[in-house]
Formats: sequence, C-alpha cells, structure tokens
Amino acid sequence: MDHAGRLRRLQASLSGHKLDSLLITHLPNVRYLCGFTGSAAALLVADRGSILFTDGRHRTQAKEEMKRAHLNNVSMVIARQSPLLAAAEWLAAQRRRSTPAWVGIEPESITAGMRDRLASVLKGKARLRFAPPLVERARMVKDAAEVLRIRRAVELGASLFQVARNKIRPGVCEVEVAAAMEYEARCAGAEGMSFPTILASGTRSAMVHGRATGARIPRGFVVCDFGVILAGYCSDRTRTVHVGRPSAEARGLYEAVLEAQQAAISAVRPGAAAGEVDGAARRVLRQRKLARYFTHSTGHGLGLEIHEAPRLSEGQSQRLEPGTVVTIEPGAYVPGKWGVRIEDVVVVTPSGCEVLMPTDKELVVI
Amino acid sequence: MDHAGRLRRLQASLSGHKLDSLLITHLPNVRYLCGFTGSAAALLVADRGSILFTDGRHRTQAKEEMKRAHLNNVSMVIARQSPLLAAAEWLAAQRRRSTPAWVGIEPESITAGMRDRLASVLKGKARLRFAPPLVERARMVKDAAEVLRIRRAVELGASLFQVARNKIRPGVCEVEVAAAMEYEARCAGAEGMSFPTILASGTRSAMVHGRATGARIPRGFVVCDFGVILAGYCSDRTRTVHVGRPSAEARGLYEAVLEAQQAAISAVRPGAAAGEVDGAARRVLRQRKLARYFTHSTGHGLGLEIHEAPRLSEGQSQRLEPGTVVTIEPGAYVPGKWGVRIEDVVVVTPSGCEVLMPTDKELVVI
Repeated sequence: MDHAGRLRRLQASLSGHKLDSLLITHLPNVRYLCGFTGSAAALLVADRGSILFTDGRHRTQAKEEMKRAHLNNVSMVIARQSPLLAAAEWLAAQRRRSTPAWVGIEPESITAGMRDRLASVLKGKARLRFAPPLVERARMVKDAAEVLRIRRAVELGASLFQVARNKIRPGVCEVEVAAAMEYEARCAGAEGMSFPTILASGTRSAMVHGRATGARIPRGFVVCDFGVILAGYCSDRTRTVHVGRPSAEARGLYEAVLEAQQAAISAVRPGAAAGEVDGAARRVLRQRKLARYFTHSTGHGLGLEIHEAPRLSEGQSQRLEPGTVVTIEPGAYVPGKWGVRIEDVVVVTPSGCEVLMPTDKELVVI
Repeated sequence: MDHAGRLRRLQASLSGHKLDSLLITHLPNVRYLCGFTGSAAALLVADRGSILFTDGRHRTQAKEEMKRAHLNNVSMVIARQSPLLAAAEWLAAQRRRSTPAWVGIEPESITAGMRDRLASVLKGKARLRFAPPLVERARMVKDAAEVLRIRRAVELGASLFQVARNKIRPGVCEVEVAAAMEYEARCAGAEGMSFPTILASGTRSAMVHGRATGARIPRGFVVCDFGVILAGYCSDRTRTVHVGRPSAEARGLYEAVLEAQQAAISAVRPGAAAGEVDGAARRVLRQRKLARYFTHSTGHGLGLEIHEAPRLSEGQSQRLEPGTVVTIEPGAYVPGKWGVRIEDVVVVTPSGCEVLMPTDKELVVI
C-alpha cells in the first residue's frame, strides 16, 4: 500500500474511535504515513486532510520526500520552534465548533510536559485523548515493498557475519571486529547500525546485551548480534561461534539453542499466537534443563524500528498474520561461564514462514 | 564531586522544592547521579536514601557500576517489567502518611501514558508534580574529572579529522570518508559516535544536517561535523575543507565564518550571557551581509549528552560559569550553492575560556 493509501485508511478509521483528528508524534509513524525522515515533525491526520508540521531546517527535505511519496494533498507548515506546538496552535485557530473537537495523541511518544503544554494551548477549543496504537497495528503487517526492503537489509546484515568470521581470532579486541563490520555496513550503503553491535566473547557471552568492548577475545563462545538500517528498514541477526575446540558440553549447549530456534521457526504460521512461538522454543530448552538460562523473550517484530509489535513472549495472545516480520532468537546464558544465541528474521507467509537469508547453522569453530 | 556528593546535594535540595522524593527517569541523569549506564532504569532519590530500579538483564552491571561509583548506600530493586512502574509500586507500598507525599517527576523524560499509569498506581498514596530541571542545572557545571573526560573525547574526535583529510578526494563517496572516521573511532575505544556523522560536500554543504550519503565528493566545500562518545562523554567538532582551488568568494565566506567563530570564542567568559556569545558571532556575519545565511544557534552545552544546557542562541540570558562546556559553531549556508561551518568545544575558565585541542584553522585545500 502506498503512503496515500496508508493515510486514507487511517483517516477513515478515526471516527470509529471517536476522534476528529490524530496527532502523530512518533517519528517512525510519521515516516510510515508520509515518507518524511527528518528529526522534528508532527503529522496531523484529519478527515479533511493531513498536515505535516516541521521546522525550517527540514523544509526542502520534507517537500522532496512527500513529493517522492506522491502526497500532493498533504500540506506543510514550517514551525518557528516546536512542530508539535505549532500543530496545537493551528488546531486552536480553527473555526470554533459548538463542541470542542477530540484530538488523539500517542501516549508513548509524547512527554508528560508536552501534553500539558498542548492542553493549555487547546483549552476550550479541543480535548486531548490517548489514541489506540492505530499506526503500530497497521505497521505490524508489512506489504510486499516493505518485505523487500527488510530482505535487502537482512542480506546486507548477513554479509557482515563473514567479516566477523574472518576477523575473530584469539587476542583480537571485540571492538575491532565490531568496527570492521560497521565499516563494511556503511560502505555498503547502510544508514547506520540498527542497534549497538553486540560482540560478547568468553564469559561475556553470558551477557545478553554484551556490547563490543576493548576486551581481547579468549577461547570459548563469541556471540555476534548485529543489524543494519538500509533505506529505513532494520535487520537483526545473531550468530554464535566458538574459538578453539569446543567441549562436548559446549556443543550440547549450542545444539539445544539451535533446536529451540528451529522449533520456534516451525511454530510460526498465520493464526499462531505470539506466545505459542515463544513456548515452542522454551519447551525445547526446558527438556534440556536449560529453561532458567533463557532469560529473555523469543523474538520481536521489526521494520522501520528494531523493536516493533508483536512481542514473542510468554502468554502473548497476539495472532500472527501473513506479512508480519519477526526475529526468532532464543538463547541460553550461564552467568560467569558462557552463553549462546542464534537469531534469524522470518516473514509470516500464507502457509507458514520464510527465513530471510537462511544459512547453514552448524557451529562455526575458529 | 563524586557520585555520592552529587546525590547528597540533590537530596538536600528536595525539601526546598517541596518534594519528598524525585523520580529520575532521564538516563543521562541516572548515569550522572549513580554511574549506572544501562538502558532501563529509574532512580528514586529521597531524603532517607536512594534506590535504583532496573531489570534482570542489568543486575550484575548495576551492582558493579554502583560499586565502582562507591555508592554502597544506594539500594537496588530488580523489576520484573518496567523499572518505573516498580518504583511507583514501591512508593505505593510505603507506610501511609497522614498527607500523601509529593513525588517529583521529570516532565520531558516521562511519557504522558506512563505518567497516567504512575498516577493510577499512586492514587491516594502520593501525588506527582513536575520537578524543575535540578539535575540538568547541576550537570551544566562540570567538575575537573568531567572536563578531563571531555578533553579525552575531544582529543580522540580531533584525530578523526586527519582521517577525513587523508580520505577526502574528488570522486570518493561521502559515506566512505565517514565510515573510515567511524572505524578509527571505534578501534580507538569510542563507545560510538555522538551523532550521525555529517559529511556534506558540494551543494550539500548548504544542508546544516547533511549526513554522509553515497554522493561522490565534487569540487567545493566539504563540511565535516563529527563527534565520539568516550567513557560516556561526548565530543563535537566541525571542520570545513575545500576540494580544488577555492575562488576568492569561497575564501571570503570561510574567513567570515572563522572570524565569527573567533569573536564568539572571545566572548566566552564567566558571567557572560549565552545570548551575548551568540550575538558576537552574529554581529560579524551581519557586517559581512551573511547574517541571513546563519540559520542556527552559535552553540550548545555538551557532556554526557551531545546537547545539554546552555543553548547559545539569541536572547538567552543564562550566565556562563567556570566549568561550563559549550560548542562554538557558527556557519553560513547559501541554499543550492555552498556552506561553511567551523566548530570547537570550549570550557569556561575563571578568566575566559580554553579551546580544547586548538588547531590552526586556515582553510585546508585538498
């Protein structure tokens, strides 16, 4: 669906939620709806049309990007200071109705301080109400163009593992490996990394969020968790390698996590609840007496953001639909000893799911 | 001042603001007060002591970091879900007072949705009130240890310009230059860049926020604006070079911006208003009929964040104090044609200011 279609669908849904307009402040939502990628914006979506509020630094960019999105009917207002306050002032200046209009706001992307300033500008003219996550719900199902972009991001992301594999040696600093991956990503056109690269070696592999440090890589597991942003869309991938000959116990841990990942991937299909996918991974690790070392959820949606709906965690009842894109990333972490995580991005298809850039996942020994 | 001293000073100031406790949610403020660098935390500061709320992923890290900060008297609570909600639940479980306690919150770092959830947890037990920016004010004046960290960050940052200078050639992609700088920064121990590297060549040099793209560098100006994060503290520096022989007009533009920068640096001293420093730069550009091309403010504070108080912009009455660290970065941008910006970080001293890592700023011609 093109940007105009997304906006039209959102506009059409407002009255069902008893909203006269919706003030979009979450920047990935603004980008999704009108293509604008700048860092200061508020998008007012209303029945009668939409208006992008931004500031002087973004004038040219906003014009170009909305033209590229074929949005000739979205107007633009350049704010002197805050685009959001400018939107409130615009609303306050509208012809007075007999009853104040209801303006939806996004509760998790507007600060408490800003909501109070908006309310004071709009006093007697419009009332603010928390809107349900309408745009997040729409974004959960990706169209073909979005899946293609994610596929390209995952392909570029996957190529970075080759860089890591060539660079990882005992005695090399974690951060040198990460830097080489990030250099490759940038030269290949990535806007940046989708999160700080995790390169956790030795006992640090037990740290779920073990960002690359100056530590020298010892023998043992190295968890590499990395992603790029390409044309706005994120990738996310984890591979765990072993430096030096792995013990039978290490191989066992790796095999258990891999089996859990495969079980979760097999559970991904339209209609499955997010919690079922998590359960499939957790069941395997429970059978191996590793459940207590699996301390996070099995995965999360990704797209314009690295973390989106749905969350694949215990008890989540959200149903998967074709076009939903999620990570599948179980792990097991024994504090002070070691950790393993294996992660792929999958897209839900009408009959199950497709792993983007599947590779052989036998334990790589360096 | 060490972390314990910072916390003590903040605790002592609460009653003056009619607050029984203060719930710190802005992560750089949490780091400033207790040394914790994780990504999920709320710090409850109260007369009787302080408590860090974080989640299970950060247990070991929080313990180690608070020990390193010599904070043995700050307790820690591990939240199952949101650290902030856990803090509210902890507050709600306190012995009932005759009158509900006043809990300060940070209006710009708490979402509207979260404030309402907190208020509902605390109903009848405590009342929320927007606190003044107490921590931001304290952070504005850096102590010697902080200035040293910023100095180290600026030194590393400055070395990246040599990388850029060696890499910039006609026909090279902007992003290749940025990638080489970022690789060097990472290998030298930077946690990351303090903002997306700006490398704006040719007519793109007129874009104030011209992030590096795949564009090939033509003849003309190249604005390089870049910074690193080293041990938590940011650097920020801009140099503009010229590819090919510059015209007299290009030289004139560069000289005008350099003169404006020097005038602003000369205006930095204790007691000067932030707006005066901005005015000094603007005056020079006005004399050269370039004022309308100087479309942003002269500078900003920096430290744990890339943008902190004070803002050096028109009309700001905030007075500078010894220990305040600011950027001085005037520029002139002629849309569709070219742009120049020159930026250094300076620290206010008892008698004026010190430029960190001063260099010769003659126009570099490549």
